[in-house]
Amino acid sequence: MSSDHPSRRRLPFETAEYRRRLDDTRTRMAEAGLDGLVLTDPANMNYLTGYDAWSFYVPQAVVVLPEVDPVWIGREMDGGAARATTWLDPDRIRTYGDDYVQSPADRHPMDYVASILSDLGVATGRVGVEMDAYYYTARSHHRLESRLTGADLVDATLLVNRVRLRKSQAEIALMEEAGRIAAEGMRRGLDALEVGVPESAVAAAIYRGLVGGVADMGGDYPAIVPLIPSGRGTTTPHLTWSDRRLEPGDPVIVELAGVRHRYHAPLARTAYIGEPPEDLVRTADAVVEGLEAALASVRPGVTAEDVERAWRESIAAHGLEKASRLGYSCGLGYPPDWGEHTVSLRPGDETVLEAGMTFHMIPGLWLESFGVEISETFVVTEEGTRTLSDHPRGLILR
Amino acid sequence: MSSDHPSRRRLPFETAEYRRRLDDTRTRMAEAGLDGLVLTDPANMNYLTGYDAWSFYVPQAVVVLPEVDPVWIGREMDGGAARATTWLDPDRIRTYGDDYVQSPADRHPMDYVASILSDLGVATGRVGVEMDAYYYTARSHHRLESRLTGADLVDATLLVNRVRLRKSQAEIALMEEAGRIAAEGMRRGLDALEVGVPESAVAAAIYRGLVGGVADMGGDYPAIVPLIPSGRGTTTPHLTWSDRRLEPGDPVIVELAGVRHRYHAPLARTAYIGEPPEDLVRTADAVVEGLEAALASVRPGVTAEDVERAWRESIAAHGLEKASRLGYSCGLGYPPDWGEHTVSLRPGDETVLEAGMTFHMIPGLWLESFGVEISETFVVTEEGTRTLSDHPRGLILR
Repeated sequence: MSSDHPSRRRLPFETAEYRRRLDDTRTRMAEAGLDGLVLTDPANMNYLTGYDAWSFYVPQAVVVLPEVDPVWIGREMDGGAARATTWLDPDRIRTYGDDYVQSPADRHPMDYVASILSDLGVATGRVGVEMDAYYYTARSHHRLESRLTGADLVDATLLVNRVRLRKSQAEIALMEEAGRIAAEGMRRGLDALEVGVPESAVAAAIYRGLVGGVADMGGDYPAIVPLIPSGRGTTTPHLTWSDRRLEPGDPVIVELAGVRHRYHAPLARTAYIGEPPEDLVRTADAVVEGLEAALASVRPGVTAEDVERAWRESIAAHGLEKASRLGYSCGLGYPPDWGEHTVSLRPGDETVLEAGMTFHMIPGLWLESFGVEISETFVVTEEGTRTLSDHPRGLILR
Repeated sequence: MSSDHPSRRRLPFETAEYRRRLDDTRTRMAEAGLDGLVLTDPANMNYLTGYDAWSFYVPQAVVVLPEVDPVWIGREMDGGAARATTWLDPDRIRTYGDDYVQSPADRHPMDYVASILSDLGVATGRVGVEMDAYYYTARSHHRLESRLTGADLVDATLLVNRVRLRKSQAEIALMEEAGRIAAEGMRRGLDALEVGVPESAVAAAIYRGLVGGVADMGGDYPAIVPLIPSGRGTTTPHLTWSDRRLEPGDPVIVELAGVRHRYHAPLARTAYIGEPPEDLVRTADAVVEGLEAALASVRPGVTAEDVERAWRESIAAHGLEKASRLGYSCGLGYPPDWGEHTVSLRPGDETVLEAGMTFHMIPGLWLESFGVEISETFVVTEEGTRTLSDHPRGLILR
């Protein structure tokens, strides 16, 4: 056992929980007829082994096998992080030399991964790879294919993400902590809104809450940076902060997430600097009403599209519609996304909700002269639902 | 022209500079015999068009053509960000509906990208793709291949990155601003080091400097979060902060980057809480000496491996060695990396340095009981070199 590794960190979950996740993964592997599974999504690597470091800018993988413990494969200098943050025995950690890193095309880290797969006896058979996972590049796949000509590489995108859908009590406890941190970041951000203050200063205030955290509990970094569009910037999502100074008559959207051990609780609110125009007030009221109607519809047994329909019908009564999805499952995540890429709250998604699933419901409307986003992260409970952050929902006036 | 788009931001560079970059890219495309180039690396998309938003968690692309202006392709809700942040005419912006996003496998955003390529007349011929760029997944490539059977998709990884190597005066000016912000983040982080303070609180102090910035200038978000390992955590790189509280006798490494308009100036320093052990003092002194020897070797005409050799010889005299590369070109970047993936300061890299190139030189040693990182970002000048942050290099005592 590697428990005496000098930089060993306490894992956020019991080893038994990681083993349960591994069992569930193996069940799905067996269903898919897989002899091995090569995970490259950092969230999936973390989910099964605990691995947590900012090393996903170089290729790395966790190999899951039917009978024996997983193997972590990464860069030589990151072997220490693997020993420090995973429950794996040190002999399950394999590393490639630095000359593989960002080298000319004759040398690629996936060549090394292929050689380890051969060592592990999965150079033949059906091997799952995450074809659409972040950081599994086209070249990574080609190198693996060209080195493992005896194997049948099959697409196993989202196989582990689906295991992640239902959270354990321990995971929900972390997301509840993240929800408290999200509310703290929101409070600090909204308090900073004032005429003349640049968006960047609002971002700094938000980080004070998100990273400094609450009481004795700091926050982890979010997979998406806080978004603080102001003025006409609110008419489109995903703009990051600038030095634009707030002006009287600005709408401001704050979207952020509190994070604990990579578990996210996203939260969005909308504010206005000054006396708000009537159409903004009406839109914000309609969004809150629709959000609450959709939340009220949540309970085990309803489908993802049922929840979206509750929202859609509510805002239609106010003459509004939203073309994009209402929300998505979320939790464990690394940049660039805190979403899990499995279930979306939208027409056509017939996933049946179960207790322990967690979603970010984000009714966002980006209109001609302003945008409105007012969101909640919620967990499906036996009784219905519970939101994770405590913060007033209505349009905030400054 | 789209200059009247309501959320239009001022671009960080003149349109003429983007056009020069485009010309250089086209020259390389012609050399490679390319009829079109599909860029998916967010930094390359930004470099040629100005596009800047946190939307790279869904597939998007910039298509470069030999004769006509580039085309930006992305999600419908991000079309507004494209109109707000690029110099492109609105008719060069194409968007796919939300039902393409994270949908079951019968529908993928790259199907839409393929249809636009057909519209643009590049469904045949040689089309460059960035096989090893972040966010160009194996499935993205397969979908493009299966939809463009008449085209020859060839690997154009790093084609634009190589254009990025030599910075303009305007780019260097932004990196100098980033260097000032990096020093401010470092100062605030080091000031926060105290027995009993958790790493997360140090991270919050650093963000205050990095995001709040200096004087009237806020900072942009870094492509890698600040890394603040302490104690035994310093023996391995890339661990992110935790709630571990600093103890007497802790070494602490702070690695961060100041950022302006996505241009990075990374900086690392090493501190110690208390009376430092003799071997740490000696190692830190040797690292500073080696760093300065390597910096002194920099001038136009020397090679990347020459610079590394100056470091290597300097620390060898102290009985030290470092297996991993000494540094890498850096500048414009998005998560997960601020490095440019072109030139590395290491044996075998014979790239000849030219004025205007910028590097992060990061001598990091991760030893048995502590680690040391003391780094500088530098620009190659006609005369030699200039570092971008003003901060004392030696071991910092707290």
